[in-house]
Parts: sequence; C-alpha cells; structure tokens
Amino acid sequence: MHIEKIGIVAEHADMLQIGTRNMQNYPLLTEVGKTGMPVMLKRGYGCSLRDWLMAAEYIALEHDNLGQEQKILLCERGVVSNHTHRATSRFLLDLQVVPAAQELTHLPVMTDPSHATFWQPWVKSMMLASIAAGADGLMLEVHPNPPEAAVDPLQCSSFEQFEDMMTAMRLVAAAVGRTIDA
Amino acid sequence: MHIEKIGIVAEHADMLQIGTRNMQNYPLLTEVGKTGMPVMLKRGYGCSLRDWLMAAEYIALEHDNLGQEQKILLCERGVVSNHTHRATSRFLLDLQVVPAAQELTHLPVMTDPSHATFWQPWVKSMMLASIAAGADGLMLEVHPNPPEAAVDPLQCSSFEQFEDMMTAMRLVAAAVGRTIDA
Amino acid sequence: MHIEKIGIVAEHADMLQIGTRNMQNYPLLTEVGKTGMPVMLKRGYGCSLRDWLMAAEYIALEHDNLGQEQKILLCERGVVSNHTHRATSRFLLDLQVVPAAQELTHLPVMTDPSHATFWQPWVKSMMLASIAAGADGLMLEVHPNPPEAAVDPLQCSSFEQFEDMMTAMRLVAAAVGRTIDA
Amino acid sequence: MHIEKIGIVAEHADMLQIGTRNMQNYPLLTEVGKTGMPVMLKRGYGCSLRDWLMAAEYIALEHDNLGQEQKILLCERGVVSNHTHRATSRFLLDLQVVPAAQELTHLPVMTDPSHATFWQPWVKSMMLASIAAGADGLMLEVHPNPPEAAVDPLQCSSFEQFEDMMTAMRLVAAAVGRTIDA
Repeated sequence: MHIEKIGIVAEHADMLQIGTRNMQNYPLLTEVGKTGMPVMLKRGYGCSLRDWLMAAEYIALEHDNLGQEQKILLCERGVVSNHTHRATSRFLLDLQVVPAAQELTHLPVMTDPSHATFWQPWVKSMMLASIAAGADGLMLEVHPNPPEAAVDPLQCSSFEQFEDMMTAMRLVAAAVGRTIDA
Repeated sequence: MHIEKIGIVAEHADMLQIGTRNMQNYPLLTEVGKTGMPVMLKRGYGCSLRDWLMAAEYIALEHDNLGQEQKILLCERGVVSNHTHRATSRFLLDLQVVPAAQELTHLPVMTDPSHATFWQPWVKSMMLASIAAGADGLMLEVHPNPPEAAVDPLQCSSFEQFEDMMTAMRLVAAAVGRTIDA
Repeated sequence: MHIEKIGIVAEHADMLQIGTRNMQNYPLLTEVGKTGMPVMLKRGYGCSLRDWLMAAEYIALEHDNLGQEQKILLCERGVVSNHTHRATSRFLLDLQVVPAAQELTHLPVMTDPSHATFWQPWVKSMMLASIAAGADGLMLEVHPNPPEAAVDPLQCSSFEQFEDMMTAMRLVAAAVGRTIDA
Repeated sequence: MHIEKIGIVAEHADMLQIGTRNMQNYPLLTEVGKTGMPVMLKRGYGCSLRDWLMAAEYIALEHDNLGQEQKILLCERGVVSNHTHRATSRFLLDLQVVPAAQELTHLPVMTDPSHATFWQPWVKSMMLASIAAGADGLMLEVHPNPPEAAVDPLQCSSFEQFEDMMTAMRLVAAAVGRTIDA
C-alpha cells in the first residue's frame, strides 16, 4: 500500500490490508490507523510474535485516539524457515503462532494458507489445520482457471476446489464449535 | 536408543522409537530395521523432509530384506526455527510437512505436539490441527500430576486435560473422516 | 525514514540510510532514489539475497533515470536464525552473503557487526572477519560511555575499544590488500 | 563413524572425527572418549552452542576419567538457515559462534568452510574470515582435479587454489597475531 493512496483506497474498500513487507512501515501503520477502518495486518515473514504485536500497537493507538474499538485482524501468512519442502515454496505456515498469539492478545488471528504454502495441493490441509488450531479466520486465493492466473498460479484454487474446501471447512469448524460466515 | 540394547528392548516392546538426535545414526537405523519390528522415526530437529525420507530408507531396506511390509511411522516433533514464541520453547511444530510428506511417501505421518510446543496450553490446539492437517497419528505426553513430573513438566498434560483433548480430537477426526483407535 | 521527511534529511545528510524494517518499502526506495544521493540499503533481517538485490533495483532505476552512476551500498546487519548464542542477541551476522553478493552484483557490500551481534565483546571479531571476507566497508556504533547509552548499551563500543579495533582492522585490511579511509 | 569400528580406526588414525549427523549420538561420544585420542566434534547442523558444548561433555568426562587433558576440537561446519544464497548450498557458515564459544569454553574452535559453503568460489573468503574471527584452526577439502572428484566436486579446491589460499591465510593469521602450523 502506498501511503499517499490510503485516501482513495479507503473510499472504496471495506478493510485495509498491510502486506508482509510493510508490517514494520510505521508511518504507513499510523496513517492507516487514522482512517479508523478495519485493518488486516499480515505478519512480516521474518518477524517474531513480539514484532507483530508491537506493529499492531501503531494502529491500535490511532483507533484509541479516535475513541473507537480496535479493529485489527492479525494474519499469519508464512515465515522464512530452514525447510519449506518444495523448491518453489519459500515459506512455512506457522500454526504454533495461533495459540501463542491468543495467549497474549484479544485481537483475532487468521491465516493465509494459499500464500504460505504457495502450493495448491497443500492448501486444504493447512486451511483445515488453521481452523482446528483455533484461527478466527482465513483468506484463500481462488481463480476461475488457476493455470492461467497472471499471478501465483501454483497456489490458487479453482472454483471446484474452493467448493470442496468450504464443505470440509464447515465440518471442521463445527467440530471445534465455530461457525463460518462467508 | 543404545545400539547394543536393541535386543533387550525388542524383547519387551511393541515398537521401537528413534529419537530426533539419532535420526541420522545410520548403523542404529540398520540394526533397528533388522529386528523387523515397527519403528517410529522422529524427524531430526534441523533436518529436511529429504533427510528424513533418506533416513527411513535405511530401515525400509532391512524390512525389504526380511521380505516383510515396511513398518515405519514418521513422527514430526518440532524443528528449530527463528521464532518459537516462548523463551522456554525451542521448537516449532511443522504441520506443512504433513501434506508434503504424504505427497512423496506411502508411510504414515504422525506428530508429537507435546514435545514440539513444550508448553501444555498450546498442545490441544496443535493436536487438533495435526488431525485436521491429515496426520495419521499422534503421541501425547500425559502425567498424573504435571507440576511434579521429573521430566518436561511444562508440556505434559494431566489426566483431566487428556480426557478433554481426546473428546475434542474425536470430533475433529470424525469431521475429516478419520476414526481414533486408542 | 519517513517518506515525507526525505527532503529535509537530504538537505543536511551526505548519505541516506534505509533501515532493515524498510528494505521492502518500495515507495520509500523510489523517493530516496529520486534524490540522487548515495543510499545505504540495509538487508531486511528475514530477506534473501535475491529480495535484497530486487529492492536495490528500485533505487538503481531512479539513479539510472537521473543519468547518474548507481550510488548504492548494500549493508548486511544480521538475519534471524535458529541460534544466535545469547538470549539478548536476536540476529546472526551472515558473512557468507558477502562473497555471494559480490558474485552477483557490482554494488559494494558492507557489514554492521554492532547491530548484528548486539553484544560488544563479539564486535571486534566479526568486524575483522568482515574485512577478511572481502567486505567493502563497515559501520560501528561507538559511544563515549556505553553503559550510559540511551539506546543499545549492550553493543556499542567505547572510544578506547574503537581505537583498538581500528588498529587491528588496519592490519587485517592490509593483509587482504585493502586500505581504510576513515 | 560406526561405534564397532572405533578400535580399528583408532589403531591407524591420529585423531577421531565425529560428523555433524552424529554430534548427539551419545554412546558413540562415550566410546570415542574412552580411547583417550584427540576428537574433532563437528557441530550438528541444527544444533545450538549449548547442544554442542553438552555433547562435548560426554567426551570430556571420559578424558577426565582417564586422568588426561581434554583433547577436543570444536568444528563449525555450517548450519541450516533461511537463506544460503545458492540452490546447491544447504548451509550457512556461522562465524558468530566463534567468539560466542570462546566466551564459554577453553576448547579450541575451528571451522570447515568447504563443507559449510559447498561452493568453492566462496571458500577462500570464509577461510580468511574464520581466521580473522579468531578461529583456532581450519579444515579444507582439496582435490587434484575437482571436477573429477567422486564426492562434493562443487566445494573442493585444486592444488593451485590451495596454494593461493594458504598464502593469503598466512598474511591474515599474521595480522591477528597467529601463526599457521601446516
């Protein structure tokens, strides 16, 4: 997100997303916070839980200043690691951070298994694991024709795969006492 | 496992376990394989999936030589990582390795969330995530009175916690079409 | 560096520094590049050599657009790692990246052993190693009275230590055919 | 090293080497220690400094039991890491561990830049850096005709390269007040 474009984006979007490479771009966090809009804060791919929560504070402070509830979603999207199991996969989905974050913060924690695994055949498994681990949400990348996707064709799911994944997810969510709004 | 003690252990045990620090102790793997007994091969905490499968080959070769089915259980027990989220936790449970291993091998894959997280409050979450991710089994450390445990008191679960965890696990297992034999 | 403050900083400074947390703040890189000033680009602490060189391209493009020589200094300042050897040290100085970068780019490569090690007793060792590894420069944090330093007292060197370190560095530099301008 | 072969090896060798994959093979360490011979203990590639020193204790105890001086050489040979800078390089040489180990132990610390980098063009740089960092020794892999080496052709140095490397090393060693016995 370009800091100068927050205004125009905020006019049209329902939520602002801070990408992994900008998690510690503090002036951007402050400006995004000042809009009062809900913010999804992706975890920096080399950052610790402490780094992440400290970054969230920049947004939380502005929400507090506006006298409103803190509207921040923490999103785990994969971290750099020694071993990612495929040459084309650069990240490892860290699900241990889900209970660890929930131990320290009231903010909801979600995951992004599509970008984390970067390999569609693993997405369903990591999506169901996220829900079972206690994640409060998920984002999934879907494309009508994945092999033709201009960006990230290896990880995006087709409509048919998405339907199957959602069916499975509803069952796991129910098993852990959660419901899906989607 | 001391290589000289395999005989006496094999007389009394139903399965042999190779610990994380011995995953690449190849003479031990060969001797353990020669017993023909089922073997649980824990992943070395700095080792890749390829390292792990190559180690399993030492056992598989001996089972093949005996003309029997390969009886090897792969067990993910946490890997070294940049960030483990608590000062007392040295490892991160790698659940991405579950679908990755299943893509490459017919051997069953299980996890050990107790030793991986080394923090009891996270074990249930990682146990349910393991089952949802597609793991074929689990090991859990349980103690009648965890604060008095001589070893690893931070991670072991009480009988009451175990009962609650098993109840939750049966629900998640059913949601992903698995049943629990325990 | 706040993107809006580049102008005022550029009026007074000889070089602009992009910190580790902003290595992938692309609008900032572009604006910094447009000043035409020399830029020290610190490596993001979770970033690969490829990530680093791709970030440098944002600055290089602007220097090319200005029709001037590319004035970019790459600075290795420690990366996240499994083991950093002290509880207060969060990073590991990656000296392997020095020859690796020099294999791929004509840009000079320097190191920052003070921030990387975060422990003064190790700084001299890593400083001499950097020069011997072929680094083209160094930055060191020095304070008249380290225990009283408002920021980072564990890693900054005293004037006496600095003098000793410079003496040692001149000897190592001479041994590898380099000279020190400082 | 196969534990049953220690006797025959000890008859013919001047020093015993424990490889990275056996650093935590404790029965092997004990048996090797009982010979009273000098031991080079390579660091396990996922192991911490504490893991390494704890492993050395198994050997040290046996040397103490024999009433002799502890003859143990610690050898850093590269660790698993997020980024190793070449697809064929699996490890990163950790030079920060040199001063860190010397802060905690009287045992000499050496490095193995050939196996760590696994890329001959980087070996000289990491070899000189090791000496400048304060390492007490080095091992280098040399082959009369590297492209024809049956094992590890990417990392071994030719006789001509070795001669050039030794010349450079003598200069750096002298600059840091060390001499080379080789």
